[in-house]
Amino acid sequence: MNGDPSSDPSRGVDGGLGVDTASDLADLDHTPEQMAAMGRAVLDMVVAHQKEVMHAPCRGGVQADDVCRAIRQPLPPEQGREIEEVLRPLFDDWVKRSFTTPGPGYMAFVPGGGLFSSVLASLVGEGTNRFTGIFAAAPALVQLEGDVLDWLAGWMQYPAEARGLLTTGGSMANFSAIVVARETLLGQQLRDGVLYTSTQVHHCVTKSARMAGILADRVRMVPVDAHYRMRMDALAEAIAADRAAGLKPFLVVSSAGTTNTGAVDPLPAINTLCHEQGLWHHCDGAYGAMFHMVPELRGVLDGLSQTDSLTLDPHKGMFLPYGTGALLVRDGARLKAAHGASAGYLPDAADEEFYDPAQYGPELSRDYRGLKVWLPLQVLGAARFRAAVHEKYLLAQECAEAVSRIPGVVMDTWPELSLFSFHLTRPRAGAGAEAPAAEPADLAEENRLTRALMEGVIRRGRVMLSGCEVDGRFLGRVCILCFRSRRAQMEACVEDLASAAAELLAGA
Amino acid sequence: MNGDPSSDPSRGVDGGLGVDTASDLADLDHTPEQMAAMGRAVLDMVVAHQKEVMHAPCRGGVQADDVCRAIRQPLPPEQGREIEEVLRPLFDDWVKRSFTTPGPGYMAFVPGGGLFSSVLASLVGEGTNRFTGIFAAAPALVQLEGDVLDWLAGWMQYPAEARGLLTTGGSMANFSAIVVARETLLGQQLRDGVLYTSTQVHHCVTKSARMAGILADRVRMVPVDAHYRMRMDALAEAIAADRAAGLKPFLVVSSAGTTNTGAVDPLPAINTLCHEQGLWHHCDGAYGAMFHMVPELRGVLDGLSQTDSLTLDPHKGMFLPYGTGALLVRDGARLKAAHGASAGYLPDAADEEFYDPAQYGPELSRDYRGLKVWLPLQVLGAARFRAAVHEKYLLAQECAEAVSRIPGVVMDTWPELSLFSFHLTRPRAGAGAEAPAAEPADLAEENRLTRALMEGVIRRGRVMLSGCEVDGRFLGRVCILCFRSRRAQMEACVEDLASAAAELLAGA
Repeated sequence: MNGDPSSDPSRGVDGGLGVDTASDLADLDHTPEQMAAMGRAVLDMVVAHQKEVMHAPCRGGVQADDVCRAIRQPLPPEQGREIEEVLRPLFDDWVKRSFTTPGPGYMAFVPGGGLFSSVLASLVGEGTNRFTGIFAAAPALVQLEGDVLDWLAGWMQYPAEARGLLTTGGSMANFSAIVVARETLLGQQLRDGVLYTSTQVHHCVTKSARMAGILADRVRMVPVDAHYRMRMDALAEAIAADRAAGLKPFLVVSSAGTTNTGAVDPLPAINTLCHEQGLWHHCDGAYGAMFHMVPELRGVLDGLSQTDSLTLDPHKGMFLPYGTGALLVRDGARLKAAHGASAGYLPDAADEEFYDPAQYGPELSRDYRGLKVWLPLQVLGAARFRAAVHEKYLLAQECAEAVSRIPGVVMDTWPELSLFSFHLTRPRAGAGAEAPAAEPADLAEENRLTRALMEGVIRRGRVMLSGCEVDGRFLGRVCILCFRSRRAQMEACVEDLASAAAELLAGA
Repeated sequence: MNGDPSSDPSRGVDGGLGVDTASDLADLDHTPEQMAAMGRAVLDMVVAHQKEVMHAPCRGGVQADDVCRAIRQPLPPEQGREIEEVLRPLFDDWVKRSFTTPGPGYMAFVPGGGLFSSVLASLVGEGTNRFTGIFAAAPALVQLEGDVLDWLAGWMQYPAEARGLLTTGGSMANFSAIVVARETLLGQQLRDGVLYTSTQVHHCVTKSARMAGILADRVRMVPVDAHYRMRMDALAEAIAADRAAGLKPFLVVSSAGTTNTGAVDPLPAINTLCHEQGLWHHCDGAYGAMFHMVPELRGVLDGLSQTDSLTLDPHKGMFLPYGTGALLVRDGARLKAAHGASAGYLPDAADEEFYDPAQYGPELSRDYRGLKVWLPLQVLGAARFRAAVHEKYLLAQECAEAVSRIPGVVMDTWPELSLFSFHLTRPRAGAGAEAPAAEPADLAEENRLTRALMEGVIRRGRVMLSGCEVDGRFLGRVCILCFRSRRAQMEACVEDLASAAAELLAGA
């Protein structure tokens, strides 16, 4: 392989015209033989990395300011280099300076992992590089994406008239949902519209609301109950107050479940309230909606199927590489009404019978996301996805049970799905594990201990955790959703939490 | 390779715990050996396709409704299959039913092509699957993306304080630009704000305006001159009229160049007007801005460096696979002010010294776009990109010259960059090629002829063209921007246009 394909004087599509291809700088192509060699070299590096990552530290050297300064190139290189040489430091050093998101011990934030068959789907999608933004330009490829959306809708028990959209992630799915609700219910009165969500919502919802023109003065952060679920009484009061003030309540954004603690908002009650009052109910299920794939777990997500729209994230609960989220809208015609468009330079949109991406979303050109979901399902089969998602649920229950028995650990939330939270406290004589509400001084100490507990676990190298701050309390979190997290990692998690906790409580 | 990795009873991370991995449905992983075998099989198919596409028909069998019906799977398969078997019909049939966008003869819409080194960047990015939405999670990888944005800003001669954002394409870049302008200039008065653009703007701008809460009643489509460029007198009048009506003009969206005819709006005059009147000037350079990379061509894009924000599309003018657009904002602090956010579950944002993607854009999780631009520049070098872009410009000039000499062809626009437009007319005795303005009856006939001309060229199989309708006239278009389009394809384009035109004018 050679970074400079022009070194082969026999090639180049206009080589036959007598062009001096040896100095044909404008020829950016590679021969198939060069592509094969480049591809194999890169594939070997990727596979070696996949092997390595199973045993890599759960967090690499992320204090990397000096490295970043050293990497920085003020200008791009004028001349090319061989791809292996270019990528060597990336694999040897740069990638490793990171949270080890594809590793089996990754239980921080909301994991996923990155299935290899989906990685290969991108190789196919970009390596064939057809235009999948409109049906007319690549109908059979777009059909696969339409199928994927139908399958997601089926798992969520959405009706046949539902339509959807594959996005880059949960943020853009939530954004498009807000736009659809706004267009459906507000029209030109958009400054009167009020959006309701809980204090626990993912910050992309308020960020998206602002992008959609629903500004901060029209967003209400409804308080939550002791389980961090939206309080229906407070929601109803807030809506009534806004109506009394002459505003137009139009949208409730619920969570299933929250990023902080995994709480699932009371979806059936929100459905009822929204139905009675003429509001749109969008559910952000970026973390949790995929558990609805498993019939045995649908009870936890009761009401999800009756929402008006739903964000779900295949790069979380389907374990795909980052870059594939999804939105479903119960009344698909609403999604199309908000995004459909034509132009003098475009082919006609597809008939209703076929899915046509640009008619249902904000993008025109974009990557071929459908294949990233379609291919893993063909290669692995749906049964194994259900089994894996179900397993993560069961592992989280077992793990939480074991963590709750660690001396000094106080459970804050048990796993409704696969995420639970807790804090560390210094056990007092006679107080037991179920400590009473902490005094302010205790709270600061508990926060310090819990932060140190997270860091102590990470430093042991096997399990990556992250915490969160809620109303002044720092919560430790465990979120099981990497496809590589199995029972062995649960055991490592419990062991390392126990030893780090013991160390902290023995010290100072 | 085997679609069912559980068939190897020795594997699985918890295999050592005595789990019966032969029936371990929840284990979705593959061994490194399986990954290597799967990867090589897919790579071979992709490379074979790349070889084939050099000689494939410029448009496959896109009348594929029956094929789509036959492909459709109401439910995903329960059991997996081998990846080669799954992908065989995709490569043999489904991909080919498309506009052959990566082929050398693709001159329709706005081409790009899809450089193989960028395809491999996705293999690296997804195959390592780190979280590149925030600096703290993978600082060295994010640094590469920061470098890429600096390089783009440098090519555009934007100032050091500019910041940017890699997007999925031009649509999302234009959207974020509108949000930033709105947040900067309107705040809560967003319903008073008026956006101005020309009748020739890409439809994603009006679509994006609506998503951002700038509704149709606040968008003015300014008429264009004979060269399809925004008319400054009409723009000034429209702004004055809106001010008189108590509205707040805040944003002009110009094009460089338009999708219809490649027209570059009068950027210096728009800069001056916006500066004087306190409006934001966003330029949609999705098609044309990359030509600014070439110093010799900067005159055509005079004023581009002084705009407030700029959309550019690496998947067009840098020839990357679909899925990588970009936005630059002159005053980077404005971009951050519109998108920056923190949350209780997130690490702190990076210092100003380092780029931190989620602080500058709407997404959090997303694919690792930076590498898709960075890697091709490292492998090929910037000099060759400049040479290729410059070549496309020169080829378009030559091609337009030759097309203009085809009997019956009337040039509507010459290539300011690499796109030109024309129509076919029946030459009248004594009228010459420069025909007078057509009568309505003539116009319908000319539109029919020109549509038939496009179709006649495509049917010859070598060159894919698309036309557009502007003010009732159908224009033929040639847009040279696929990296594989070289002089041989210009010759094919001219030959096929000439023979199709002769056939049409001889018939009927």
